[in-house]
This record gives sequence, structure tokens and C-alpha cells, in this order.
Amino acid sequence: MLKYSKGIKALEVKHSINNRNKGMELENEINISNTYYRNIQKALIYKKPTPIKIIKAIHHQNTYKIIEAYFMMPSTTDYNGLYKGKYIDFEAKETMSLTSFPLSNIHDNQIDHLLKVDEYDGISFLIVRFSKLNEIYFLHTSKLKSLLKENKKSIPLNYFKENGFLIKSTYICPIDYLKIIDEYYL
Amino acid sequence: MLKYSKGIKALEVKHSINNRNKGMELENEINISNTYYRNIQKALIYKKPTPIKIIKAIHHQNTYKIIEAYFMMPSTTDYNGLYKGKYIDFEAKETMSLTSFPLSNIHDNQIDHLLKVDEYDGISFLIVRFSKLNEIYFLHTSKLKSLLKENKKSIPLNYFKENGFLIKSTYICPIDYLKIIDEYYL
Repeated sequence: MLKYSKGIKALEVKHSINNRNKGMELENEINISNTYYRNIQKALIYKKPTPIKIIKAIHHQNTYKIIEAYFMMPSTTDYNGLYKGKYIDFEAKETMSLTSFPLSNIHDNQIDHLLKVDEYDGISFLIVRFSKLNEIYFLHTSKLKSLLKENKKSIPLNYFKENGFLIKSTYICPIDYLKIIDEYYL
Repeated sequence: MLKYSKGIKALEVKHSINNRNKGMELENEINISNTYYRNIQKALIYKKPTPIKIIKAIHHQNTYKIIEAYFMMPSTTDYNGLYKGKYIDFEAKETMSLTSFPLSNIHDNQIDHLLKVDEYDGISFLIVRFSKLNEIYFLHTSKLKSLLKENKKSIPLNYFKENGFLIKSTYICPIDYLKIIDEYYL
């Protein structure tokens, strides 16, 4: 069986990759929240691995070392899982804007995926952090759908305030999005 | 936004990686089946990307080239998604054995994950191909659970025959596992 890489801290490396840096803080906080949900046996929700196209790998110290690979366009969202028998699916993004979230920050196929999950009776939503305001919003796909019909290029902060929910943060659960689902979508 | 790799065929490369070769045929057939399910708007089920730890990446032709990375131990199964409002989760493996499927072929955390999904009211199962017999079986986690209680190191072919279901294959849907779910688990 394949020997896996252990104990190498990839986080700093990931941080050094310019464009991928943006969402790391949010990603970490969601990962902590998901680990918390798993620990208290509330839900099974994971971040999917980043899709990577491997071009070249060599045999190296009893394992495989990948020496050429590229990031691939994700075909779905970053997070999915199971909560109270329901399928949960979401994408999480940050913006530095004070007034709106640009939809160009999400890939079209990710939006399509969210819409399909909603259509197929799963629970799908967006988590958006307005970093400079330190506010994190939950926006259900049904609300995203209405906005997309109007051909908008961005989601105004006010739209989040009126149609979404502010997500509360605690030390043990920095992004407690399941609370919103409990209150409004189950 | 990050420029993604397109048009490079990674499949052959993947094939050349010795140990990962094993499951490729089965993986391809499941991917074809999942694409078929999506095309006919039956279900939204995807293979998760292979988890990879990135150590070093460089800026290269308007994108990032990963020049050092390693395979990571997967913490969950390879496939999950949504079908008729239910959360679906499974692992797929092949064996060359004519008589039994060695449980050492699945990581412990993958088995734990299947058990948890079952406990949390999702639909979880194993797909196992006996390559030399050209037979593919569906084994629901509830049946895997009973067997694990007996501390078995492998699942005998007969156990699949008695407690699982033979999965039928058609040209458009090589591994039609949802048919089993429709008939027995919904």
C-alpha cells in the first residue's frame, strides 16, 4: 500500500502561494468548526481536497514524490457532508470590499452546482466574509437564485443583511453555520 | 483569479504510478456512471480529488506549477453526493482474489467514515470488484458492520453474494449502483 506523507507542514507553503492566500483564514475557521461538529457528533462535513492534475511523479524513499502538477478548476464546491440526514453543500469566500461581494469570485460551475443541490433537495448556501467589516454571512441558494435572475455582477452587503443571516462566532466554533440551518432551514 | 491547468492529459501519468494503477479501471467506470447520473439529472455524485500535500510551488507561465508534493492519507471515502434528497457516500475497491476481499485494502478511517455516515442516516456502502471474476458487488455498511464485529480480516466472496448485491452493467452506465439503492435502500 502507498506510503503517505506525514508530518510535513504544508500550511506555510500554501500561505506563500499568492492567490490561494486570500481564503486561508476563512478556510481554517471553517475547518475548525467542522472538526468541532464532528467531535460533538453533530455533523459530518469536510472540505474536499484541492483538485490537482499530476503530470509527473517519481519513486522516492518508499513513496511517490510529485514533481510536476497544476491546480485544476474545481467542478464542485469546497465543502459538503451530512447533517441530520440531509445533504449539505456550500462554498465559502472572502471579500475585502466594504459594500458588495463580486460574483466573479466564484466559478460558474460552482454556482451551477449550488443551484443543482438546491433543486435536488439538498441544503446549499454561500458563506461570505466581509473581511474588513469582520462580518460573515450565510446566504441560502434560493436567495442567490433570485439575485442571479436579475443578472447582477455582485451581491450588495445589504442583500446579505436582508436575505441572509449573520453567522455568530464562538471560540470553539468560529463559524457556527449549522445554527442558521437549525433555525431556518430544517 | 488563478489560471488553471487545462487540456493536459493526466490519465496516462496517473496510470504510470504503480500503486495507484490498481483502481483506475473501476474509478473510470464509476466516473462514467456518475456523469451519466448527472446528465440524466438523476443524482449529483462526484469523486473527491485525491488529497495532496503541496510542499513547493513556483510561479510559471501565468499560473502555479507545483514542483514538490506528496499523496496524503485520505480522511474520508472517495465518493459522495446527493440522490433523492439523501446523502450518498461510498468507497470503491478492486481485488484480484477469487475468494475474498482483504479489509487491509481500505484505510481504517475510511471504514470509520462509512460507519458514521450510516449512523448519521446517510446511505453508505462499499463497491468491490472481483476483477478476475468480473463481478462487482454492492455491500451496504450495515452488513459491513456485522462482519467487523466478528473481527474478520477479509470479506469472503460468499458474504457479498449473501449480504450484498451484484451490480449490473450497461454500456451507458457501467456500474449502476443507484439501481440497488432504489430497490433496497429507499
